[in-house]
Amino acid sequence: MPCSGSFFCFAQLMISIMSKTCAIVPAAGSGTRMGSAKPKQFLDLAGKPILAHTLSALSSPGLIAKIFVVVAEEQIPAAREIVSDWADAQASDIPEISVVPGGAERRDSVCNGLKKLPVDCDWVMIHDGVRPFASPELIRAVWEGAGQTGACIPAIPSTDTVKRAIGGVVRETLSRDEILLVQTPQVFRKQIIVTAYEKAVESGWTGTDDASLVERMGGDVFVVRGERSNIKVTTPEDLEWADWFMRKAQREKVS
Amino acid sequence: MPCSGSFFCFAQLMISIMSKTCAIVPAAGSGTRMGSAKPKQFLDLAGKPILAHTLSALSSPGLIAKIFVVVAEEQIPAAREIVSDWADAQASDIPEISVVPGGAERRDSVCNGLKKLPVDCDWVMIHDGVRPFASPELIRAVWEGAGQTGACIPAIPSTDTVKRAIGGVVRETLSRDEILLVQTPQVFRKQIIVTAYEKAVESGWTGTDDASLVERMGGDVFVVRGERSNIKVTTPEDLEWADWFMRKAQREKVS
Repeated sequence: MPCSGSFFCFAQLMISIMSKTCAIVPAAGSGTRMGSAKPKQFLDLAGKPILAHTLSALSSPGLIAKIFVVVAEEQIPAAREIVSDWADAQASDIPEISVVPGGAERRDSVCNGLKKLPVDCDWVMIHDGVRPFASPELIRAVWEGAGQTGACIPAIPSTDTVKRAIGGVVRETLSRDEILLVQTPQVFRKQIIVTAYEKAVESGWTGTDDASLVERMGGDVFVVRGERSNIKVTTPEDLEWADWFMRKAQREKVS
Repeated sequence: MPCSGSFFCFAQLMISIMSKTCAIVPAAGSGTRMGSAKPKQFLDLAGKPILAHTLSALSSPGLIAKIFVVVAEEQIPAAREIVSDWADAQASDIPEISVVPGGAERRDSVCNGLKKLPVDCDWVMIHDGVRPFASPELIRAVWEGAGQTGACIPAIPSTDTVKRAIGGVVRETLSRDEILLVQTPQVFRKQIIVTAYEKAVESGWTGTDDASLVERMGGDVFVVRGERSNIKVTTPEDLEWADWFMRKAQREKVS
């Protein structure tokens, strides 16, 4: 689908031959909704920290040259240990990984990651540290889709009706055909996302995702189909589901 | 929360003492997204049809006098068998249950159910046949909440960013604070929902949920907090999750 014309096919070919993609993994959240002392990205999921699974997912399509994991200052030693254990356990080539200190908000953490990008990085993939289930196919589809407008996100339709409510009373039922639930990874041409974040910091904008800052600049964000299993592990119920789903995936891989 | 003033407390007391609540369970869907020949509401979930679990959920708070299960004409014998097997297996008092033929669309099915309501029914609870996980606490909260404005729905906030997209390109990122993912059961004063459906049929309105038809008449719909586990079993992945979740709940009940 993303390669829908000869110009785009050519553009994608050029991306894959000539350019370098780096990833930023914001993982500085405190895990308030998880109700645990440990940040959620460090919690155990089927025998390994969630963050280690996320690193496996990000590396699997072989598209990323370098990953910047952004964590709270006090979590840097713990994160370095997770990264090093994970790297030791990998059989094939893996991206270079740096652990970077984060900021107060997700926006500040991503900013810190953006500042570390090497000069020769042309594309940036931003992926939540607590989304361990993004498949290689999804990651590749978003990466390829970024060739269309310089910004691409995965999203899924809602199976539930979506409404806007204020003060506990419904204001509007939204047209379900147009409504999408947005996931990560989100992929951007470096200059687009760097400029978007600079403007966001200047203007005090915050957004719940990275693409919204590009939208505020007037940039077009292309959408590819996400995966229902690509959840953000946020609550204890999510973690329980994730543990079951990960073990199931591991059994299917073995058999 | 719903009982937030003496007038409302009194209103709720009156509801529970003097009025009768009937439930309509639309279960006429074909299960296209499930990719199975059998309609999804009849598929097995932890050893019993999904519909049987939904009947257990609806009956558990002891609020419902009668349930109308609406199924496709050709599924009536199968649905009657499920209802009868389910009823035989119950130890305590259960609501009276009728199986009613549905229509082409969900709207037509609910309409058929509404036409069957007894004269002395004052409140109507409409609950998807494929939402087997609504807890007794949730069902009671929605039922009590209906005392506020005559219409109440359960809904949860989205953990994902929500956007509006057209033609594969983002148009708008919605304010997550105001966006809710809506579930069932939805509870209405009978006259409100009957009028809403009459107007919808007259005007050719359709909606993805029942409350949206009340909203179109200008009615206020009150919202209570839903449950993340109260999913609509729609795809094979949902069914797999539902099976795991149901067995887990059963184990926890036993231990």
